[in-house]
Amino acid sequence: MQITVLSGGVGGARFVRGLVDALQHQGHEETLQDQGRQGAPDPTRVTVIGNTGDDITLFGLRVCPDLDTLLYTLGGGVDEAQGWGRAGDGRQVMEELAALGVQPQWFGLGDLDLGTHVARSQWLGQGLSLSEVTGRLAERWGLPALGVQLLPASDQPIETHVVVDGPEGPDGPERAIHFQEWWVRHRAALPARRFTVAGLGQARPAPGVLEAIREADVVILPPSNPVVSIGIILGVPGVRDALRGTRAPVVGVSPLIGGRPVRGHADACLAPLGVELSAAGVAGLYADFLSGWLVDEADRDGSFPRGVTVERQDILMRDRVGAGRVARAALDLGLRLR
Amino acid sequence: MQITVLSGGVGGARFVRGLVDALQHQGHEETLQDQGRQGAPDPTRVTVIGNTGDDITLFGLRVCPDLDTLLYTLGGGVDEAQGWGRAGDGRQVMEELAALGVQPQWFGLGDLDLGTHVARSQWLGQGLSLSEVTGRLAERWGLPALGVQLLPASDQPIETHVVVDGPEGPDGPERAIHFQEWWVRHRAALPARRFTVAGLGQARPAPGVLEAIREADVVILPPSNPVVSIGIILGVPGVRDALRGTRAPVVGVSPLIGGRPVRGHADACLAPLGVELSAAGVAGLYADFLSGWLVDEADRDGSFPRGVTVERQDILMRDRVGAGRVARAALDLGLRLR
Repeated sequence: MQITVLSGGVGGARFVRGLVDALQHQGHEETLQDQGRQGAPDPTRVTVIGNTGDDITLFGLRVCPDLDTLLYTLGGGVDEAQGWGRAGDGRQVMEELAALGVQPQWFGLGDLDLGTHVARSQWLGQGLSLSEVTGRLAERWGLPALGVQLLPASDQPIETHVVVDGPEGPDGPERAIHFQEWWVRHRAALPARRFTVAGLGQARPAPGVLEAIREADVVILPPSNPVVSIGIILGVPGVRDALRGTRAPVVGVSPLIGGRPVRGHADACLAPLGVELSAAGVAGLYADFLSGWLVDEADRDGSFPRGVTVERQDILMRDRVGAGRVARAALDLGLRLR
Repeated sequence: MQITVLSGGVGGARFVRGLVDALQHQGHEETLQDQGRQGAPDPTRVTVIGNTGDDITLFGLRVCPDLDTLLYTLGGGVDEAQGWGRAGDGRQVMEELAALGVQPQWFGLGDLDLGTHVARSQWLGQGLSLSEVTGRLAERWGLPALGVQLLPASDQPIETHVVVDGPEGPDGPERAIHFQEWWVRHRAALPARRFTVAGLGQARPAPGVLEAIREADVVILPPSNPVVSIGIILGVPGVRDALRGTRAPVVGVSPLIGGRPVRGHADACLAPLGVELSAAGVAGLYADFLSGWLVDEADRDGSFPRGVTVERQDILMRDRVGAGRVARAALDLGLRLR
């Protein structure tokens, strides 16, 4: 079975880890049931297409926050409390950069985490593609042994920028800042006028991305940010068409519960799009390819797109077990819609 | 008073720190003597011209070992036992690079130390010259307050390479490796056929280097390696001519005591030059501009160059106080030869 997931950072990574947990648990049960039958159980392959719009070059190093969060979370190296970065990481390099007055200081990089960025930058400088670099990092974190393949949305650099009010205020001229500056430094508190994605016109889906969507048995959208995570992947030329054209059902999990994001700032991202802050509003962004939509029991109302099967259950991923339960439910919804 | 020093790494840095200590002690005494007189005592300025032939690009980061050793030693941040690197430094980034299989692993960089290299690389990438970058780092380490100016020998990248036997052995073809690979990885145990310096033809002395030699009251060569440290600085076009032409006496401290280097591998560097392993042999390398030469009491014999005043005393820098004593003796020798 081929499962393809389009993912952002923390929420998507926790969802994918839950999915892998659920599949391993199922695989164990199937193996027990299969005793005495012939042939190995069908190996399930999970291909994760990670958002690269958050990527940023800092201190001359290429940083891919969502890919790294996926790697660290799936590989068992993530700082669990924080949801990103490495467990037990130090801050010596950043302390020295602060002593030297090197900017920016608002994006904290741990020492172990910097090892990833130094290696990635060196490999990119040697001519490897981001896909190839990501493959090397995935080996280091044991993703192949989990049956997981991690692909960047694109090998071409794309960067999400946020257009905000200029110094003169809401009626004056505007300015564009890097997504990370808006998200990390300003905590998405500067009202966004709109989002732009530098490099998107020249970007192509990374090798394997379109195939993973076309040849999937199920495509899943985790509760990632619909604008700056999944929305960026959808913007890579060809991805949306592949989702419209795939025979696989595309199912998703609402990132909003009761009209509010569980984590992050999806509300601040949806506002400039004029989209209703609701599970139904987000589903509307995917209306042209969505088959099934998992929403919380709190979300009884709303005008969901026609033709989308809506299911309700507790979708809050309180912990790793909870994430497995939500992922299992999304997968089952997809399998029923085949 | 203007004192100009041509320096390599550990030995040179300890010597310069001793010189600064000696000058501050003297300055204190002079200030006491000057009470009641008019005018401030003549401020003494020490300009250090640091070897850049050891520089290397590792993991995409520009590393300048000798300049950094000078900065850390003078600024109070050096690992005293080791003589280079930062006190109390961690190894998290290198551990992660090792986990990722990134080469080379033979050049260890501490986390705090990496902060220097990340900052330097970022600034160089922004178009600053190595002189300007070094000036910023010198500010961070408080060198101006010590009356010390640190200049790289050249703003153009130069790299010392070591030509060694090829895989077929001493009679087969040769190969060139970076100085650091020879020095750090092979501990100078591979016999050197000769040294070459990539980029030397295009290199120019950094701003202020020739002036610091021409306008000095005394020029001092600390007991740095005569081939791969001071020898590289002398090879930058114009430097040797400036030393020949300056009105200041040029005095030096022998890096060999009893025919053996006190630290490092000066013997392995002198061998391919066919130079006698002695204080007199090293003085011969400087014969065209040397005025005074401080050697150890152990070195009574030897054919010193004509016209060079040779002084004997205990020149082993056992500790910081000992380095101050040796530096003071070298300075006094220079002042007497004016």
